[in-house]
Amino acid sequence: MATLQAIKYNDGQLEILDQLLLPESCIFIPIFNVEDAWAAIREMKVRGAPAIAIVGCLSLAVELRKLAAPETKEELCRFVKEKLDYLVTSRPTAVNTQLAAEACVKLCARLTDNTSVDTTAAKEDIIKHLEAMLADDVADNLAIGEHGARDITKKNATKDKLRILTHCNTGSLATAGYGTALGVIRSLHKANKLDQVYCTETRPYNQGSRLTAFELVYEKMPATLVCDSMAAAAMKQFKIDAVIVGADRVAANGDTANKIGTYQLAVLAKSHDVLFYVAAPFSSIDFQIPNGQSIPIEERPHSEMTHTGSIRTAAAGINCWNPGFDVTPAELITGGIITEKGVFKPDQLAPHQSN
Amino acid sequence: MATLQAIKYNDGQLEILDQLLLPESCIFIPIFNVEDAWAAIREMKVRGAPAIAIVGCLSLAVELRKLAAPETKEELCRFVKEKLDYLVTSRPTAVNTQLAAEACVKLCARLTDNTSVDTTAAKEDIIKHLEAMLADDVADNLAIGEHGARDITKKNATKDKLRILTHCNTGSLATAGYGTALGVIRSLHKANKLDQVYCTETRPYNQGSRLTAFELVYEKMPATLVCDSMAAAAMKQFKIDAVIVGADRVAANGDTANKIGTYQLAVLAKSHDVLFYVAAPFSSIDFQIPNGQSIPIEERPHSEMTHTGSIRTAAAGINCWNPGFDVTPAELITGGIITEKGVFKPDQLAPHQSN
Repeated sequence: MATLQAIKYNDGQLEILDQLLLPESCIFIPIFNVEDAWAAIREMKVRGAPAIAIVGCLSLAVELRKLAAPETKEELCRFVKEKLDYLVTSRPTAVNTQLAAEACVKLCARLTDNTSVDTTAAKEDIIKHLEAMLADDVADNLAIGEHGARDITKKNATKDKLRILTHCNTGSLATAGYGTALGVIRSLHKANKLDQVYCTETRPYNQGSRLTAFELVYEKMPATLVCDSMAAAAMKQFKIDAVIVGADRVAANGDTANKIGTYQLAVLAKSHDVLFYVAAPFSSIDFQIPNGQSIPIEERPHSEMTHTGSIRTAAAGINCWNPGFDVTPAELITGGIITEKGVFKPDQLAPHQSN
Repeated sequence: MATLQAIKYNDGQLEILDQLLLPESCIFIPIFNVEDAWAAIREMKVRGAPAIAIVGCLSLAVELRKLAAPETKEELCRFVKEKLDYLVTSRPTAVNTQLAAEACVKLCARLTDNTSVDTTAAKEDIIKHLEAMLADDVADNLAIGEHGARDITKKNATKDKLRILTHCNTGSLATAGYGTALGVIRSLHKANKLDQVYCTETRPYNQGSRLTAFELVYEKMPATLVCDSMAAAAMKQFKIDAVIVGADRVAANGDTANKIGTYQLAVLAKSHDVLFYVAAPFSSIDFQIPNGQSIPIEERPHSEMTHTGSIRTAAAGINCWNPGFDVTPAELITGGIITEKGVFKPDQLAPHQSN
């Protein structure tokens, strides 16, 4: 069965699945420009570090395709840079948009310097570069899935089938397709190695119960939803073999910022002798940041915790703490960091930076 | 300010606060008989191990007061025992109802054997015994609060004010009044020793966000609501001094069954060097059970996880695991078990059994 597709792009037409409406409704909304993308990202109609970078970049491609060619390449590149700078402000924790923006700005500089390229050709090159992100991300995810499934299977060679716990949503809905952590689980399932996947609700935004559960049901994988509070009890009772999560940003030393709750899953995994893996494309690794302490953590609105739709679920007047992410120290990532280039111990990332 | 009162009893009239309607509405419903109590307990209109025992016993007092005196004491005691046996079936994990039932059946036996007591007097004695549970529980909770606050303050002698994390609801809404774990927090607050209490949402039933938060706001305690997934991040970021939770049943060796999520809080507390306390009346200790493995764990309906009111929060078709409780091994209860008789290390409980 085909996996879910949450980002549809064809000939300058961009549509995204409005994830706020899941699991009730499966509705695609058009993105006409960068401002639409920024708003959709901020409102979390699309989320997941790779997906928000891709939707941002594709929204710029949509605008560029409609744009009358600017008079100069400098003007074109100024336009592109302004739009990218704006997109980077949509959410602070993930690094993917920023890295994608930097890569695109570098391309602009190269095109400007290259006197054999005219403005129209430069515009076409930039559009192609942005549009390629969609297919590239799927290819990276397939590689992540294969590397991860192989590593986990090897480290559990005595077991016929494996029990995996995952957090948040890192699947087709968080990426261009296939997914990172959920991609590894997909690959295990394809290899007939998956006994059961346990997905956490992932409060307060319920990315697990709304989105991951939706993907798991859609693809008929053997799956069980648990509350975030049940992770340790599940590890003990079901003898879970590995925890696999995604990443919003990995620091140079392997410290990993990911959805709030990831850090405690890593602590619990360690104390239950369960392997803990992070699965992420290399574009989630920020070699500019030496360790997790420098990663900015987004604080989200209290209403995410006090209400479900229009229903109040917390007493009026209560103060809330709602960090969107937390940082897992590298030493708790006992399984490794699964990338499209292979599975690495956290301290082995740097040598592969420019491969 | 007076603490919340969730169980009102006067002259054979019993009313309970319908906790299903909190925090939206604060509505009391009458309980006319044992069947009403059984249904209210099963539907969780009242919950919390001490509270369900008290409401059950008071509902029997209501019935006994209306009952024409039976012809014989044997007939009276048969009636009482049948009603108590039925009440014990309402929920399986807490031991308080069972222990209260056993105590009442013993009283019946003594009254039957005592030839100087006639049937009418025996009935009055049983009613008085049942009605005394309300005031006794409040007195026990006040003692738990004082013992706990003193112990925690002593173990943190260098700190002016303390940061406490608690789980589920163990306050006025879970007991006859004041509370167990929340009673200890109330006592710390009265002693001007509370810097901040962090209360977990306690998914899937939101006893923390709906009920504990309601009590904390009601009494203007300095409080912050966190998701269950944020416990470790909060321990690290806010340097929490102690975790205090209640108990649904404590085994003879100190292993403690409590609301799902307690076990992982204990693991996280240990790995963050945070003291972990259980606060419970001696009536929650089941000396018949050697350790936690023999405590039955109630499985709750999946709808608690898939819906909030009429809003679906989980993908249709997803399988759920919804244990109501988990067991925390005694060795993780590093602070101790706080009872009305004092604070004990888990292995020190037995000598105090019949004090």
